[in-house]
Amino acid sequence: MSTPDFAQRLVQALGPDVVATAPQDVAPWLADWRGIYRGQAQAVVRPRTTQEVSQCLALCQQAGVPVVPRGGNTGLCGGATPDAGPANVVLSLDRMTAVRAIDTVANTLVAEAGCILGNLRRAAQEAGRLLPLSLAAEDSSQIGGNLATNAGGVNVVRYGMARELVLGLEAVLPTGEVFHGLRTLRKDNTGYDLKQLLIGSEGTLGVITAAALRLFPRADTRAVVLAAVQSPAQALQLFELLYERCGARLQAFEFFTGECVGLVLRHAEGVQEPFAQRYPGYVLVELADSIDEAALNALVEDVIGAALERELCLDAVVSASLAQVHALWKLREEISEALRADGPHLKHDISLPIERIPEFMETAEARLRQAFPDLRPFLFGHFGDGNLHYNLARPEGAPTDWAAREGDPVTDLVFDEVIRYGGSISAEHGIGQLKRDHFLHTKDPLELRLMRDIKRLLDPAGIMNPGKLL
Amino acid sequence: MSTPDFAQRLVQALGPDVVATAPQDVAPWLADWRGIYRGQAQAVVRPRTTQEVSQCLALCQQAGVPVVPRGGNTGLCGGATPDAGPANVVLSLDRMTAVRAIDTVANTLVAEAGCILGNLRRAAQEAGRLLPLSLAAEDSSQIGGNLATNAGGVNVVRYGMARELVLGLEAVLPTGEVFHGLRTLRKDNTGYDLKQLLIGSEGTLGVITAAALRLFPRADTRAVVLAAVQSPAQALQLFELLYERCGARLQAFEFFTGECVGLVLRHAEGVQEPFAQRYPGYVLVELADSIDEAALNALVEDVIGAALERELCLDAVVSASLAQVHALWKLREEISEALRADGPHLKHDISLPIERIPEFMETAEARLRQAFPDLRPFLFGHFGDGNLHYNLARPEGAPTDWAAREGDPVTDLVFDEVIRYGGSISAEHGIGQLKRDHFLHTKDPLELRLMRDIKRLLDPAGIMNPGKLL
Repeated sequence: MSTPDFAQRLVQALGPDVVATAPQDVAPWLADWRGIYRGQAQAVVRPRTTQEVSQCLALCQQAGVPVVPRGGNTGLCGGATPDAGPANVVLSLDRMTAVRAIDTVANTLVAEAGCILGNLRRAAQEAGRLLPLSLAAEDSSQIGGNLATNAGGVNVVRYGMARELVLGLEAVLPTGEVFHGLRTLRKDNTGYDLKQLLIGSEGTLGVITAAALRLFPRADTRAVVLAAVQSPAQALQLFELLYERCGARLQAFEFFTGECVGLVLRHAEGVQEPFAQRYPGYVLVELADSIDEAALNALVEDVIGAALERELCLDAVVSASLAQVHALWKLREEISEALRADGPHLKHDISLPIERIPEFMETAEARLRQAFPDLRPFLFGHFGDGNLHYNLARPEGAPTDWAAREGDPVTDLVFDEVIRYGGSISAEHGIGQLKRDHFLHTKDPLELRLMRDIKRLLDPAGIMNPGKLL
Repeated sequence: MSTPDFAQRLVQALGPDVVATAPQDVAPWLADWRGIYRGQAQAVVRPRTTQEVSQCLALCQQAGVPVVPRGGNTGLCGGATPDAGPANVVLSLDRMTAVRAIDTVANTLVAEAGCILGNLRRAAQEAGRLLPLSLAAEDSSQIGGNLATNAGGVNVVRYGMARELVLGLEAVLPTGEVFHGLRTLRKDNTGYDLKQLLIGSEGTLGVITAAALRLFPRADTRAVVLAAVQSPAQALQLFELLYERCGARLQAFEFFTGECVGLVLRHAEGVQEPFAQRYPGYVLVELADSIDEAALNALVEDVIGAALERELCLDAVVSASLAQVHALWKLREEISEALRADGPHLKHDISLPIERIPEFMETAEARLRQAFPDLRPFLFGHFGDGNLHYNLARPEGAPTDWAAREGDPVTDLVFDEVIRYGGSISAEHGIGQLKRDHFLHTKDPLELRLMRDIKRLLDPAGIMNPGKLL
């Protein structure tokens, strides 16, 4: 069937309110938010119900038309951006925004895929519970996309990845069949856990339409510490002490370099130099508890006192108010925006066995300095999870398209070191288009074969998100 | 190839120390520990290495010989017991007992499949960390079997199921290929999470040979409360209060009936009636923290005071010493043994949406009383996870084979109610042989089809654990 005919069939089946085909209506859906990828599509479908998602997929499968599922478009790897094929259909979940249930007895939340993560977090908070998934893009990202990419964020050290929060999923398979797995049971050992295949599959196996998530007790008593460190090795020792002494209260352990602080101070407003001098590295620690502010503060004072005494940090400041909690976090949270303001750069979302981070950082930096002496590294990340955002900005004065033109050998070098240290080339962002070649070259061949077999099994017509991941 | 020829080939390939074929050597491996199932096998293979597991599976696959993987044989559903086929090969992991690594920086433990769970818990404890998976059979069960069945246990309310603890797996596929997924990374978003298929697959997709598990900070400060309740509805209200007020410290919330206490007092030694009178129900609560005994005790006093004041329990006793912690737990832990002493009974390991437990228990009991008035229910379980062990003993004076002869319509009735209330017929024990028919009749047809497709994909010769699960 010709492209116009198929688009017409979609409109007939789902209505002009759901299906847009005019070029000016389709155009806003063709690029990723970083502006790196741009593709083509014959139509954008914005279903309101699971049934409409099912109809759309059934029609696409019959006609062999590629489908690109799209959430909040906050991914960093081009996973929700269509490729250059003119037949693509972009399937946006943005209209499926019902919170189907919040249950404070079972401690579950059931929400449709298009719900904005931040809205769900606030809804849980209002109900007296915590939805712990938290990340920089949470006020734009959608829960369906968060799950399709198995999002991470700042609270993983305590609550795990998005995967760990999922009790059940509703999804539409490429055939149009609806997978009714939206269970809220805590325990259900009845066969293979099929939902796990969809989580983190980046839209290549089906479309998540709703999810049942675990809620946690609120942990509103918070203490934030910013500690200055000499090196990643010192940060690692500090992590050991905090993990040992603070137990389950340790909810974030973030690292960033002095260069990141300099960049934030240059580009962000309302941020202040945290200490009298600039240090090589910083660690932002958040402890949280459901009760007893005094006890938490005493614990923090005690542990930070021990850290200073044992020389596991150079200096430290403890938040004395909620305003200070926010001010300290701002230093960390503004890094991505400051980097964006600085211009295009190479992003590497890597993870490592945590105890090898210091050595990795040393050898990677040495190799980079030798091969690309003028690069400007801005390293930060979720150190407590072994996750670094190993970002490299172009040399001072280089053209802004430097990363696109000359970045490949730099990335090759970084990933080569990552693999050598037993790490992963994608900690939490996924593969998408950005890392597909590296993924296909570095993944274990047996695992790749199994993934391709599963892909063929669930998506025999190969319509789901072509050019991404596999 | 004839059975003797194949057994001979196994012996030639792996040696007589690894392969036993004499009937008297094979006989001890043919029954489950409850004595309900007994099968046949031509050989028992007890490999010492992953390589030997691989050789065994490759040979079996070539010859189309069925393989029954076996861990500690503590499963309750006959999943590790061969069926009646004389060609079966039992593959025991009991010689693969190396703890390959305990890392207190990365907080990971890497162990081979045959390690006894209790030994791993103690090894973690000695290293200053917690492996939270804990269950009655932990001093016999093996970690490989725990993962193959996605075990639960008493700490799920805080730490999740076995699945949640797994960072990486090494496994041998039915083809003999080794799946090298033994990563210890906290974050690794590179494609489909294939290890999830093996977890909970009950030996039908391959053989887990080693696992990398998450460790947690030790939480050695413990407080245990035994509360008497009027009904499951009251237990539910108590759960809500505790969850809200104690946050992450709530580590167990177990329920059992007065009948269970009576049974334990009749059969177990060194157990005392906990209150001056017998109550309809009991809740055993454990709170744990890594610090500050005084604060934990104050919290317990405060919360239990509130519970009594709001009439969310009838009476309560708080542990004042470690000896009392053990004494209170003994009441709960002895129930299974006391039931065994009472004679064969019908076990139903079910889960429900937690807020529906009271209503389920009422209606199920009413239907049972009408249809089978003389049954003796002994109900207990991990209430905080919605998981009940809904056990029914034969009528007073009935022959001991009553359950085997007349149990089926009773189980049909229980499962019928479970399904009606949106529950699961297997919360944590799995399907095995015991629940296969019910599983095949109650599982969603689409999910069943996908499971069978995945089974065919990974085990095209269909050699893995025939007659179990699918």
